[in-house]
Amino acid sequence: MTTETGHRRSGGSDARRAARLHAHVAREPFLTRTLAPVEVLGDEGLSIIEENADTILQEVGLEFRGDADALRLLKDAGADVQGERVRFPKGMCRQIVQATAPEVFTQYARNEANHVQIGGRATVLAPNYGSPFVRDLDNGRRYGTIEDFRNFVKLAYLSPHLHHSGGTVCEPVDVPVNKRHLDMVYSHIRYSDKPFMGSVTAPERARDTVEMARITFGAEYLEDHPVILSLINANSPLVWDATMLGAARAYAEANQATLLTPFILAGAMAPVTAAGVAAQTLAEALGGMTFVQLVRPGAPVVLGSFASSMSMQSGAPTFGTPEPALVLYVMASLARRLRVPFRSGGNLCASKIADAQAAYESAATFGPTILAGVNFVLHAAGWLEGGLSIGYEKFILDADQCGMAAVFVKGVDLSENGQALDAILQNGPGQHFLGTAHTLSNFETAFYRSEIADNNSFEQWQEDGSLDAAQRANAIWKRMLREYEAPPLDPGIDEALLEFVSKRKASMPDSEV
Amino acid sequence: MTTETGHRRSGGSDARRAARLHAHVAREPFLTRTLAPVEVLGDEGLSIIEENADTILQEVGLEFRGDADALRLLKDAGADVQGERVRFPKGMCRQIVQATAPEVFTQYARNEANHVQIGGRATVLAPNYGSPFVRDLDNGRRYGTIEDFRNFVKLAYLSPHLHHSGGTVCEPVDVPVNKRHLDMVYSHIRYSDKPFMGSVTAPERARDTVEMARITFGAEYLEDHPVILSLINANSPLVWDATMLGAARAYAEANQATLLTPFILAGAMAPVTAAGVAAQTLAEALGGMTFVQLVRPGAPVVLGSFASSMSMQSGAPTFGTPEPALVLYVMASLARRLRVPFRSGGNLCASKIADAQAAYESAATFGPTILAGVNFVLHAAGWLEGGLSIGYEKFILDADQCGMAAVFVKGVDLSENGQALDAILQNGPGQHFLGTAHTLSNFETAFYRSEIADNNSFEQWQEDGSLDAAQRANAIWKRMLREYEAPPLDPGIDEALLEFVSKRKASMPDSEV
Repeated sequence: MTTETGHRRSGGSDARRAARLHAHVAREPFLTRTLAPVEVLGDEGLSIIEENADTILQEVGLEFRGDADALRLLKDAGADVQGERVRFPKGMCRQIVQATAPEVFTQYARNEANHVQIGGRATVLAPNYGSPFVRDLDNGRRYGTIEDFRNFVKLAYLSPHLHHSGGTVCEPVDVPVNKRHLDMVYSHIRYSDKPFMGSVTAPERARDTVEMARITFGAEYLEDHPVILSLINANSPLVWDATMLGAARAYAEANQATLLTPFILAGAMAPVTAAGVAAQTLAEALGGMTFVQLVRPGAPVVLGSFASSMSMQSGAPTFGTPEPALVLYVMASLARRLRVPFRSGGNLCASKIADAQAAYESAATFGPTILAGVNFVLHAAGWLEGGLSIGYEKFILDADQCGMAAVFVKGVDLSENGQALDAILQNGPGQHFLGTAHTLSNFETAFYRSEIADNNSFEQWQEDGSLDAAQRANAIWKRMLREYEAPPLDPGIDEALLEFVSKRKASMPDSEV
Repeated sequence: MTTETGHRRSGGSDARRAARLHAHVAREPFLTRTLAPVEVLGDEGLSIIEENADTILQEVGLEFRGDADALRLLKDAGADVQGERVRFPKGMCRQIVQATAPEVFTQYARNEANHVQIGGRATVLAPNYGSPFVRDLDNGRRYGTIEDFRNFVKLAYLSPHLHHSGGTVCEPVDVPVNKRHLDMVYSHIRYSDKPFMGSVTAPERARDTVEMARITFGAEYLEDHPVILSLINANSPLVWDATMLGAARAYAEANQATLLTPFILAGAMAPVTAAGVAAQTLAEALGGMTFVQLVRPGAPVVLGSFASSMSMQSGAPTFGTPEPALVLYVMASLARRLRVPFRSGGNLCASKIADAQAAYESAATFGPTILAGVNFVLHAAGWLEGGLSIGYEKFILDADQCGMAAVFVKGVDLSENGQALDAILQNGPGQHFLGTAHTLSNFETAFYRSEIADNNSFEQWQEDGSLDAAQRANAIWKRMLREYEAPPLDPGIDEALLEFVSKRKASMPDSEV
């Protein structure tokens, strides 16, 4: 992001662009927590939930639907398989996952400055995922298109506060369902050099994603470099379906990473209580991660949790409530105990627009996301109305919050300069610090500077048009897109990718499933 | 707050009012944390800051201006007094404060259901304080009046999420400065039965506040029941001025409670770093609390901290940035180590209106406020544009966040019902939980229900007028004021209060200082 507001000019704008590129390189590729994660339960409470998850896995088990290979694998590993129902002896899943799943791994980007660490003290912030609709202040709400998709890839690339290009940032509804993934993956590779996510809507689309990654990175490179991270959602309660199992298998076979995420609307797909949601989430995720480790031991997996509350009147999902925040903290602790990376949270809201509701709700999830030490954060920017829509203005507002999190996680500087004792001792009572040497030498980096917040006087704000935050964000995303320049991509790779996309598209008729 | 939207009717509305009153009585008078407070520094780091505060107190000291009695008291207690400069031997302030200041105390309200605990695991949420301007969607921004003041007292009284009536919720600019406090204190007593704050703008106004409390509660009662809590701000850096010392003395002599609060715009009144702000804040607060303990050993004191960042371009205060959040966590830890109650935080923002900026910024302070375990929270509802203005809609939006905090601090329910294991075991894979016995029996209390959030479908929201959160809040505060009924007050007390106010007003000409 830049601070200037003028139109594109040739001379000065080159210099500014160079400065931005430089700033880009200097930025950190992911957050590294220095603070201990916040825990809302002690060891005893967490053990109870783990024990409950084990009881669920043993007594009810999970269904692995429409995938005979999966059932065979699980049976061979010691599970009790009856039809599609798979019951796991206590401790089996934990043992299999802990034996081979990495505690921390790197997802590689085509720009090495953008490699991200998944797990440990790292937090990686990725944009919104999966919305069929897009929204901006000029055109309101409408179905997403491939142009919108490209726009969000460009915005995530340009934002210093996002570490990842994400996956289905919005659904490009103008492209047939069975061909969308080709345009989406191509866009991530072509318009960004941050790491990205793969298609999961069918096993062959996952394989297409792997093929395109092989074209980009080289087939051998992929064998020991995860370059794709993909979202495998459970069909809660207690079901993994054929599509997700097939996609997970395709990525695992290629040693690519998966997020195994029970997606739970508490009260519908799980009980209404935090401890109940946590136990069921853990059981489902353990089953999914076990499957992946059996397909390819050591393939990177991330324990995912997506839990929302619901309106008990209408059944609609609700966001920003305290209950899912408690679930998030508990699940983060459980993942640490299991020693696998954790995915959850984001800037989630039910609001249709980027108003106070949206911001309050988003902060109520994003705060816990950061404090719990979530390792991979989908939906860190753009999410509106329960994920049905991604907003251009919301994206900009959220990214600003991501920037603040980067400062917060560094904690308190206790260096001599941070203590500033001499500065205080040398300054008498009643003497301000505005011009002191300490203030001047810390001027540039003292405080996070938001691009969106208006801190001017009321009179100045009024003179500037009495704009709200969304209106200011509107100007920012437009300027970013206007000034966007694609990162370099080897023309041979680009050509090969385009050829692959074109061949695959030609190989099948359009389909809306 | 109520959920119905109809106009006032005679029959049904009585019943609803009764139900509300009942709900009011059943509500908890303050939050009680079950979670451990979040710490961003370990013991070693906190010791460094304490040591730095001691060095500041010893080497530079504080100025106690225009108050010869204060200087004499401090000198007699062992401080090195040169003119108005007071230097404290290391450890002196801590020793004096710890010897007599209570770790926890109760502030009594005229309705015993509203007594609040200040300190320990309690968090008390009070409204905005000190704004000269008010704002609502209908009339925009304008100077506050005594009618606005009464309105906010009524709204805080009606809100189940606020525990306190506050003090100068807005400045009633239509009443002369030297008489305002009489109308303000009368309003708190007459229109609410929650605890309140006293005047500090002159020692005699503090004494008027004490007199009115004596009329209300009985003079003897006050001797061992703090019923007034008052905000004494340091004149940072390192100065306590005559007005604040005089007000603090008046309250201490009457055994009433004070918040000793360095008000620091980092970079102006202190260095720009978190550890520097914390050391200076601790030094200033220790000096102030020491003075109060010398005036009357055992008088309740609260360690206050108000720290904001600033725009290094314009010098304007900024809110919602990560740096003051770190200061807040550190100061909360320091207060716990000192074993005194702690005041900080609130729903602070720089935004002029109740938009996404306001909400993001507010949440960025209010989240830490709750997680750090702040004991007394001023500005929990209503604050806009750096405190220059209080917003009617912002007040409603913030109060909703206060309600969510009340749920969050209870933590995770690990009862059998909370674990919900049987509910999961009895529910097969793929079977939803909407109609299960467990869901039905937890239906009412499962999730926090926001009155302001719109969780409806996009289509329904559009049909309802595409309102933003502030517009919905506008309807809520108007309905609350329409339905407001004053809590009972003994007519004899009311008459005596009115007589006192009238006599005091007649005793002096209007003055604007």
